Formats: sequence, structure tokens, C-alpha cells
Amino acid sequence: MALKSELKPECFHVVEGRGVTFAKGFKSGSVWAGLKSKTEDLVLIVSDKPASAAGVFTTNLLQASSVTYSRKIITTGRAQAIFCNAGNANACNGEQGDKDNLQCAQLSAKALGLETDQVLVASTGVIGRLMPMEKIEAGVPLAASALVASAEIDERTSKAILTTDTRPKMIAVEVNTPGWAAPIRIGGITKGSGMIAPNMATTLGFITTDAQIEPQLLQMALWKAIEKSYNRITVDGDTSTNDMVLVLANGASGNSVTSDSGYDEFYAGLEHVLQYLAKEIARDGEGATKLVSVTVKGAESEQGAQKIAKTIAESPLVKTALFGSDPNWGRIMAAAGRAGVPFNPTESSVWLGEYQVFAHGTGTKFDNDGAHAYLKSSEVDLVVTVGRGTSECTYWTCDYSYDYIKINAEYHT
Amino acid sequence: MALKSELKPECFHVVEGRGVTFAKGFKSGSVWAGLKSKTEDLVLIVSDKPASAAGVFTTNLLQASSVTYSRKIITTGRAQAIFCNAGNANACNGEQGDKDNLQCAQLSAKALGLETDQVLVASTGVIGRLMPMEKIEAGVPLAASALVASAEIDERTSKAILTTDTRPKMIAVEVNTPGWAAPIRIGGITKGSGMIAPNMATTLGFITTDAQIEPQLLQMALWKAIEKSYNRITVDGDTSTNDMVLVLANGASGNSVTSDSGYDEFYAGLEHVLQYLAKEIARDGEGATKLVSVTVKGAESEQGAQKIAKTIAESPLVKTALFGSDPNWGRIMAAAGRAGVPFNPTESSVWLGEYQVFAHGTGTKFDNDGAHAYLKSSEVDLVVTVGRGTSECTYWTCDYSYDYIKINAEYHT
Repeated sequence: MALKSELKPECFHVVEGRGVTFAKGFKSGSVWAGLKSKTEDLVLIVSDKPASAAGVFTTNLLQASSVTYSRKIITTGRAQAIFCNAGNANACNGEQGDKDNLQCAQLSAKALGLETDQVLVASTGVIGRLMPMEKIEAGVPLAASALVASAEIDERTSKAILTTDTRPKMIAVEVNTPGWAAPIRIGGITKGSGMIAPNMATTLGFITTDAQIEPQLLQMALWKAIEKSYNRITVDGDTSTNDMVLVLANGASGNSVTSDSGYDEFYAGLEHVLQYLAKEIARDGEGATKLVSVTVKGAESEQGAQKIAKTIAESPLVKTALFGSDPNWGRIMAAAGRAGVPFNPTESSVWLGEYQVFAHGTGTKFDNDGAHAYLKSSEVDLVVTVGRGTSECTYWTCDYSYDYIKINAEYHT
Repeated sequence: MALKSELKPECFHVVEGRGVTFAKGFKSGSVWAGLKSKTEDLVLIVSDKPASAAGVFTTNLLQASSVTYSRKIITTGRAQAIFCNAGNANACNGEQGDKDNLQCAQLSAKALGLETDQVLVASTGVIGRLMPMEKIEAGVPLAASALVASAEIDERTSKAILTTDTRPKMIAVEVNTPGWAAPIRIGGITKGSGMIAPNMATTLGFITTDAQIEPQLLQMALWKAIEKSYNRITVDGDTSTNDMVLVLANGASGNSVTSDSGYDEFYAGLEHVLQYLAKEIARDGEGATKLVSVTVKGAESEQGAQKIAKTIAESPLVKTALFGSDPNWGRIMAAAGRAGVPFNPTESSVWLGEYQVFAHGTGTKFDNDGAHAYLKSSEVDLVVTVGRGTSECTYWTCDYSYDYIKINAEYHT
């Protein structure tokens, strides 16, 4: 939890049970359009007025129609609504996919009384199947006619965007500074669960805030916070065609955030929201039985720390050992050693929680039963020091269980 | 099998049932020293006379005492014997580990009447536990007194170096050129099974040949052949502290191999031996149910083809889909798309054996039952084209099954 303390935690507090309609001037509508078999699967998140918009998107060369489309909207810095469907990724569908994606935006704009280019589109689900547009046509007006702001719709919306996630993931915070009459609110929801059956799925994140902030500054804040949250989690190293995180900031709080005023507090709140959501994705990784934080300290550079932490966090051998609650420093150090970052093993240490299991190039005489019991916890902290440098990095991951194989092997295309 | 045809297969043939003592002037001794619970675990492979020696070693920063020691011997280009033990990796044991490793060489040299620096050392097994030197002291003279060349000792030796491998891996070939009176023989054994419990284990490979060849040329041939064999297999992306492949060439055939004469034929035989052994390791990956070849074609550069092939071959989602015999082109293309190599998905194709499942950026209408049945084979070929370039690369890997998790999670340190 080292990061938290850097973040002036006193400037914000979490508000339980709220999500994307907690910030002033946001409403959401959630309906069952028939893309998933039983549960709600189509969502509109709408601001009362045009908002600053920022986004980050998958770096995969294969990009769903929603990614190429929404990326273009984000370059304008403005948007007012998000259309999201779960159950069909509309990826690898060629020109028809692009047309259908545009139609999702057009249908939403019409139902909401907006211009098409004010509507961002996000999709998740099966790839390579055409979007069932008649279902979308029927669903969008229903969602648009049911827009509301409430704890209940926050929860429904957080569930409607899921695919194989085992639980919804949402958070809301209030951020205060002495200069503001009232707090700024930030709310968010996410889905993930790694790449998921059927075929694969997607990390989506939607953040709403009533801060008044220019698009460029919002985008900078998002990039920075993504680096310390979504870009620090790994379930299986695979990325999807559909990943995106979107932020809308509509200014309804009346509080202005600029690089000179209120930015640090706003950023702290945003980073907390993104970090919480990202960790919830790792915790809910396919088949996961525990959330694991991998911190590398003492590195010569942050990039080096990151490479080592990522290699450990993605090592199948480390992840299976964690499933078995095995204090296996050999696998951890072997993963560190192949990360491509020079360090001296004789200056390295490995801690599993309180248990130092490796020091000065060799295993310590540690309490094996105690370490084994610790690793059975639902949250496990793994710390590796690789020298006397001052750089560090934390990754969050989960263990590999039988269920990871089951979930990913038993689906048939 | 594209590689084979480039390799003038007519210049060599496989000799069934033989291994490291097939080449003239090599003997082996194999005994049970008590490092493994029941089976032979200590091996000496010895040439009648000093041999040219070449080797490749793990690139992991953490290196076992045997790696630092044998790497130094290989720089001299000469050696006459290999000591190998299975059951204890003698890694991360500090100075005592280095002393014990040296003593393994000294004991072997004494028993064989050689200088210490003529003995290469290889170890595999548990890391972080001191080598039980009294068992080594007792075992080495027994092995030295039982040296023999035969099909029987070839098989025993191939088994004695194993840890959790499910089967031995050996091969021998005879190489002919018009200029040689008699063929050159090359034999080899290997072990692998990825990184393995307990803790992790090791890829070891020992090759013997009666070719007359200078150490520098031998080392060059080894580097090149390793690039197309051991460096093209992946079980889980993890590498070990103890990996090494060693070659001894004693000249007993009387046939000289130089860069001008016989090299192509010798190289073809060596590459076949290493490629066969490497593929056997992938086939015997922990919990594997099938051998999978991943070929990327049409790349702009060989390096690009390699990066894409490796990313596909290491993707947990691809490997679990293969376990489930799922013709899941989405996961394959998504892995290709995140490899960091630019290509145009609309110019890409995916074949599973005869079944083209992806073309021009979208899924094809393929025979789903047929593709599913094909993927149930024990050997599966997966081919991805990524454009119109002329470069290609093949990786070999295996699927991820429940047993991968079982093997790796259920061992406790």
C-alpha cells in the first residue's frame, strides 16, 4: 500500500455503494437487449451536458470497430454519452462491423437527442460474429427512456457490462480541497477477468466526474493514472481487441481543476478509483483464488523495476506456486533473473509478507509452515529487492488454478 | 517440416535405439547415488581422448555453480568428460555450492585419470539445498568403473539425467558425404519438461560426435543449431538456473569437418539431432497432451516472425484453447496482434492443419467439427501468415492442461 500514502489519502474518501451516476449531472440506463442469455447487457451512460472526454485504448494490432471509432471521438476531447453492450465484441467483422458500430452511436444519439459524434461506443463479448442490430435497435430507446441517477442504477450498470466476471466492480469517491465549495465526485465501473471465454474478452472501464477540467489535462491525468493501475495488472499477459477506459468530466460540480489548482487532489482521487478498479480485475482473474501484489524495490530505474515485476507477475510457475501456497523463492528469483534487467542476485531479497525467504543469493532458514499459511491468504504481498537503487514498481496479479484451465479450455468456438 | 527439407535429409539417417555412446570412442556409466529416490541419478559420459568442446548456457542472471564452472571450461574449447547428476541443482548455494561443484569435477577426474579441467559438470533438481557430497563421493567411482558403449547404456544414461520428465529423449544419426570413408556419428540425449517441480528444473542436453572439428567451428555450428531448436521451444516461458547443452567431438571417425569440407552435412545432422531433442522436450512439457508447431510466415523479417511465433506459443489462452481442441482463431490473432510487430490483420490468415479459419481480417466459414477433431491429434500444426514478406519462423510448444497446474501447484517447498 505504499502508493496510497503518497497520494494524500486525506483529500478524498470513498463513498460506498455508488458508481457512475454518483457524480452530479450523470444518469444511466441499463436494459436486457438479448445479447447475453439472461442478464442486462446494454447500457447508456449520459451526461446532462457536453463533457470533456479522455480515453485509453488497446495496443493490440487487432482492434474492434468500437476502438477505432471511439479513439477518433476522443481526439476531439468532447463527448456526452457512452453506449456499451456486453455479449458481442463486434471485432474482426470487417466493414459491416464498422457500419454496425456507427449505427450503435447513431441509434443512441437519436434516442438521447445528441449528435452522433457525442456518443462513445464500447463493446465486449464474442468476436467474429455480426452484431444483432435488431436487438440493439430495440434496446437503445428502452435504455434511453429509463435514464436515472441512483445507487440502484449504479449497481445494475456495473453488472450489465460484465461477461464472465464473477462479480461487479465499482467505486465512487469524493475529493475535497480547501478552495472548493463542495467536493468533486468521481465514480467508476469496470469489467475484466483477463481474456475470457467465449473467445476472449475485454477490459472496459468507465469513469464519470463532475470536475470542470480541460480535455488535455484530463487525458494527461488519465494516462498517468492508467500507468499506475490498469497497466500494472496482469492476469495472463494477453490483451484484447476491445480494451478501453473512458472518462467523462462534465463540470457539474462547479469546481475547476487546472494544472495550478486542485489538480493534485483530483489526480489522487482519479488514481485511487482506477487503482481500486484495476486491482478488482486482478482479484477476479479467471479462476483466481487470491490477489497478489508483486513489488520490486531497489532497482536502478523504474523501467527496470517494472520489467522485473511484470516478469514475476506473469510467470506461470510463480502463479501456480501461489495457487499451491508454496513459498517457492526459486521460481520468483528465476523469473526475476530472466527479465532482461541486470542486477546482482547476491544483493537481492525476497519477502512473502513478513517472511524473508531469500537473502544474499541464497534461501534463508524461514518458518516454512508460517509462510505456507500466509500464502493461503486472499491477499498476498510479494516483495523482491534487487539492489540499492531507489526505483520501485508494484504489479497486481492472481494465481493460476485448475479453474483457469477449465474456464479457458472448455469453451468451444 | 519445412526446415527438414532445407537440410538435405539425404545426407544423414537416424539410427534407432542409440544415444550418447553411439559415436566412436565414447562410453558412459550410470549409477544410483541416492539423489533421486529410486532411479539412477549420476552419469559420466567420457571420450577415449580429449575432444573439442562447445556449449550453450542459460541466460538467467541466477546461474547454478555448474553453469559458471562449465562455461569457463568451454572457453578453452577442450574437454573429455561430462559429469551429470539429477536430483540436486546445486544452485543458490553460495560459495559452498561452488566448492561442491568443483569437487564433483575433481572426483570425476580422479576416477577417470583426467585433469579436473577436462571434466564438464551439469546438475539438475532441487535448488537451494546443498549437494550431498558423500553420495557423490560414493557414486562417481562406481560410474567410472562401469563405463561401456552400448544401446543398453545409452538408454540407461538417457533415463538417469531425468527429473520429472515422463519419458527419456535420445537420438543418434549417421552422416555421410562422398568424401568420407565411413560415416560420422552424432548421438544425443536431453531432459526438460519445462521448469519443473521440485522448485524448478532444467533443460540439459549432451551431444557426442566422432567428427574431427575445431572447437570454434563446433561452437558456431552449435549456436546456429540451437537457434533453430532449443531456442524455438517454449513450455511456459520460464528459464532455469541450470540450463546447458554440451557437445563433445573427439575425432574418432577420422573424418575431418572444416568450413570448406563436410560442414554442411555435419551441420544438417547436428541440427536434426538438436531439433528432434528440443521437440521431444516440448512434447513432454508438464501436463502436455499434444505437440504444437506454431509457424509464422510472410513476415518482413525473421526477428519479427520469431516474436510473433513466440508470443502465440507462450499465450496461456492459446495453450488452454489447444488443450480444449478449440479452433479459436481469435486468441491466436489476438496474441499475434500484441507481439509488438507491425502487420496488417486484413492480409493475415490462420490455418489449423488443413483448415483455414481466418482470412482477410475475419473468420472463415470452416468445418468446425473437422477442425475440432484435427486439434485432438497428438501433433498439431498452426500456421499464421502476417503479410507478403518472405521471412518465417517455427516454434514448438505444448498445450496447458489441468496437469500443468497440478504438477506445479501441488509441490510444496
